[in-house]
Order: sequence, then C-alpha cells, then structure tokens
Amino acid sequence: MTAPSTSSSPVPRRIVVLAGGVGGARYLLGVREYAREVGAEVTAIVNTGDDATMHGLRVCPDLDSVMYHLGGAHDDERGWGQVGETWTVGHELREYGAGPTWFSLGDKDIATHLVRTQMLDAGYRLTDVTEALCTRWAPGVRLLPMSDQRVETHVVCTVPGSERAGAIHFQEWWVRYRAGVPTSGFVQIGLEQARPTPEVLEALGGADLVLIAPSNPVVSIGTILGLPALREALRATPAPVIGTAGLIGGAPLRGMADVCLGVIGVEPTALAVGRNYGARSTGGVLDGWLVAPGDGGPIDGVLVEEAPLLMTDPATTAAMVRAAVDVAGRTR
Amino acid sequence: MTAPSTSSSPVPRRIVVLAGGVGGARYLLGVREYAREVGAEVTAIVNTGDDATMHGLRVCPDLDSVMYHLGGAHDDERGWGQVGETWTVGHELREYGAGPTWFSLGDKDIATHLVRTQMLDAGYRLTDVTEALCTRWAPGVRLLPMSDQRVETHVVCTVPGSERAGAIHFQEWWVRYRAGVPTSGFVQIGLEQARPTPEVLEALGGADLVLIAPSNPVVSIGTILGLPALREALRATPAPVIGTAGLIGGAPLRGMADVCLGVIGVEPTALAVGRNYGARSTGGVLDGWLVAPGDGGPIDGVLVEEAPLLMTDPATTAAMVRAAVDVAGRTR
Repeated sequence: MTAPSTSSSPVPRRIVVLAGGVGGARYLLGVREYAREVGAEVTAIVNTGDDATMHGLRVCPDLDSVMYHLGGAHDDERGWGQVGETWTVGHELREYGAGPTWFSLGDKDIATHLVRTQMLDAGYRLTDVTEALCTRWAPGVRLLPMSDQRVETHVVCTVPGSERAGAIHFQEWWVRYRAGVPTSGFVQIGLEQARPTPEVLEALGGADLVLIAPSNPVVSIGTILGLPALREALRATPAPVIGTAGLIGGAPLRGMADVCLGVIGVEPTALAVGRNYGARSTGGVLDGWLVAPGDGGPIDGVLVEEAPLLMTDPATTAAMVRAAVDVAGRTR
Repeated sequence: MTAPSTSSSPVPRRIVVLAGGVGGARYLLGVREYAREVGAEVTAIVNTGDDATMHGLRVCPDLDSVMYHLGGAHDDERGWGQVGETWTVGHELREYGAGPTWFSLGDKDIATHLVRTQMLDAGYRLTDVTEALCTRWAPGVRLLPMSDQRVETHVVCTVPGSERAGAIHFQEWWVRYRAGVPTSGFVQIGLEQARPTPEVLEALGGADLVLIAPSNPVVSIGTILGLPALREALRATPAPVIGTAGLIGGAPLRGMADVCLGVIGVEPTALAVGRNYGARSTGGVLDGWLVAPGDGGPIDGVLVEEAPLLMTDPATTAAMVRAAVDVAGRTR
C-alpha cells in the first residue's frame, strides 16, 4: 500500500469512471485501490454496446469483465472469462450443431447469463440485474450499465464468402473475424434513441471527479459518449473530466483500438484520440488528458499531461489514477 | 440376439408406445430390440406433464430420459441424466442464490434445454424441437411429445411449513419432497384443453400395435390418456392395445407408482391398475394386459396374461414385448 496522495489536489469523494471491458476492468482495479486509500466511492458506467444474445442468453461482455475482475474471478492467463472455467455446455451445444460456434461460453459464465436472462425476462432492468449479480461478487465499485435500453454495435464490413458489405454484430466482427475483414464503419443500433439510466445521470451530476478509462475509444467509450443525454450530462457536470489514453507510442495497451480508430479515420495515437474526444470548452468531453511519456502535445482547451501508463498491477494503476487526480486539480 | 417370434401372431410393422420417463425409456430399449428383429417401425408418444421451466430453461424430463436412454447417453448408475455429466452451472447458480436449489441441472443437460428453449422461443413446436434434438441422438425410435401445448401436472398437498394444502408443480413434489407429504390429488393444468399433435393422431390411426409401457400409470400414462382427443384416437385405432403392468406383487418396478396410485384411490397392484385402465369394449383403453406371474386375474373385456416382467436388459425386455405381441394376436 502506498500512502495517500500528498499533492495539493482536492481529494475526490465521488469518482465516476466511464469504462469498457477488460481494459476498463484493469483500470478500475487501480481506481478502487486509489479510492480505498482516500476513502472515495467509485461508480463505473459501463458500455453495453457489445451485448449480445447467444443461445437465447443475454451476454454483457463488458459488465461481466468488470464484475469478474473486481470480484477476483477473472482469468488473467486466458485474458477473459472466469478462472477455473469449464466448457461442457459449449461442447454439447456444438454436438447439437447449435450456433454460433465461434463464441465460447464457459459453464460458469453461462450461470451468470442464465440469472441475467431470467431476471430480464421477468421485467427487471439491466441496472437491477447487474446489482443483483454484484451481491455475489462484491466488486467494491458500483457497476452501472450505461443504459437499460438495448444498444448494439454492428459493423459494416465484407465478410469471407460475401461479395458486398453487410452489417454484422460487433461480437462476430471482433471474436470471429478478429477485426480482420474490410470494414467501413460502425453502426450503434438504438444509440440515438437510448437514454442513460437515472442512476447514471445522478452519478454524473453528483461526481467530483469523472475519469475516462483507457478503454477502446471507439466501440467502448465512443458508444457511451454516443448516448445523447449522457454526453450532455458529462458536459454539464461540475466535476472535472479527465481521460487516460489507451495507446502508447501509437500502439494500443491491449485489444484492437488501432483497428477501430482506422475505421473511423482517426490516427491511432494518444493525441489524436484526445483531440477526437475534444475539450468541454469546445463541444467535447475532456478537461484533462493523460498520455504516456513522449506522447504529449497540444489539444485546444485540454490540459495534456504525461505520466507512466502501464497497468501492471492495481498499485501501478492506482498511480495512474493519482496522476489523473493531479491533472484534475490543475484544471480547476 | 434371439430369433424372431415363432408364434402365429401377426408381426406388427408399425408399433406405437405410450411412455413416461425412465421406466418408459427402459421399456423402449426392449421395443427397439424387438422391432429390429422383426423389421418394425416404432413411434413413442411421450408424457409431457412433468415438463417444467427451471432457470428460464424448458425442461422435458420424460422426453429427455427416453432420448438419452435410446441415444446411449443415460447414466445407469445415477438413474437419471447423462453419463459423464458435470455440474458447474448448477453450482454457480447456487452461488448466485438462484433457485430452485432442489432441482439439479447438469451441464450437458443444460445444453439440451438451451437448444430446446431457444427453438421454442423462435416459434418451433415441441414436436419439431424433439425431432431436431434427436438428429444428434439417433434414438432409432420416433419420439413424439403427446402434445405441443403446455400441460403441467400439479399436486395438491401440504408442504412442510405450510398449514393448509396448496398446489405445487409435480417436480417439486417428486424431486424436492420425494412424494412424502400429505397429498390429496393431482391437477393436470391445461390437459382438458390440450390437443394431441397431428403426428400423434396419425401414428395411432396407422398403428398395427399399440403398447402401453409399464410407466407410472397415474402421472405418466394417466396424463397421456387424459388428453381427450388422444383417448378417443386410442379407442378408435384398429390396432390392438396391449398394456404391461409396472407393478410386480404389489410393488412398483421403479419409481413411486404406488404412492401416486394411493393418492387417486387405486390399489397398488397390477390387476387394479389394469382395471383402472379398463377394457376398450367398456369405455377403457385396453385389449390385453400383461402382468407378472402370480399377478393375474379377471378384467372385464381384457385378455390378461402372465409373463416375466423384469427389464434387466434390452433382450429381457424384448421378451416382454414379444409376450405382448402374442397377447395382441390372441385379442384379434
């Protein structure tokens, strides 16, 4: 344990984090570590644009990644899903010829989806379902889906065997084709009509620090920011909004952010992503932007700072969070 | 392998069997054995009154018991479910506090239910779903649910902790309370309104032998016979209808038929069950009734015969079927 920050920045009491899946989860481990040191509460607003229905089960990959990570159940070696996972159900589904065969559902994971699907079918909101699932995992962070309405990212691309472009679910593009097919754009179905939940709006309104995790800036953070009312709330919150880049020296920390950025015509650099998010003073969402040493540069209206950005473990990541808090202090 | 029957009975070509779960499945192993010897086709009309929705999954215990048995996947040691079964999902569901905890769903079994539930949700009939599942198991017998409409057996009883009688699902009575609570009756919800499928009616109309398996005469066979149009079709078929008793010397071959018979006020003997089914000539369903040696006696309008009734293996069971064919020949 490191000592609480000794900088002169005001210590935040209510931290809100916008986050995607595994990258967001690792970042949240550091935020939780920092928050424990200073006695702050953490709320994570998590992307649901990757959600999908597989074999009739509602799967929320980003919410589950965050929940399993914070609950200590994430399989670090495999990089996704739960540790000690088994694969009987998936094997049997393939024996029945039941697709999709490119999406692996572990047995432990299936229990999560069964509980979720049954609660959703019974009329509970995804927000309530997530809270119910979290009673088991005790993540120490309040997890909120960005919306209770269905938003699904589809990808306009040409898939093998097809002669012209069509739209496939993000999961198929990501998991089945490893983002390796000619791709022209993302379509977030339902995004314009979807509303953030009251809990999300309340969290943003009551925050004294908003952090944007180094998650995929296009399909994770970009989707969250694409909710019109959420973007408005983010622009209106009295709290400083500090983002942390998920790319170092032009390469993503993890995942395929560079590929996604290429699709939307943004250079895969920390600075280009920060400029794409933009300053709150000029219609964007950022007050401060944390980048790796050497990745800095000017962004109109945004305080850009350099700091080590490797999320090796919660303590290292907490140092990144402390750096973001320092930036926040200097944006006031 | 035994030689084909040398009796003078006409060899049936299209055999229809009314069957419940494990007992019906074991009987069908013998029917299939016999049918292979004589080149006959077998259709099983299976009880669906035990079906239930657990964790949002549609579970059809009798259809699955028959399917797994005939597909060579049944766990003979445990007495139900699939061999090599694992239990990860169920364990995780309990960790989430998701009930019912008294009903064990194996991982392999869950794959079956996922495929079924998804197909039903997509609008397929249970008949079509069953056929689709059977393409994997190749049971060698055509499996037909008795109806595509929902029929659910509930039990009027007093459960522990309750002061007055209420109705609980048959599975709860059977699996959770082991039929060991004060019980006053069975209510087959939806039975009066349910229709047998066109496939069931066609099978009965085209049969040249109908066998009633030694399944539970109350909650398995009794439920099938409770479908008004099925009972009519059974009474109208030109084929002889031969039942085989599931009790020997007043004790059930397996299961808790004696308890169920007690609830409806029928003595737990082969003869009492045969009388309860009754003769086709007097408003019942039987032409012949096969009982164990020493269990015989008169039933008005029914040819009662004695034969060894132990279902030790498919060959022994095939001998029971051969005995039923002989009885059929003598009822013509």
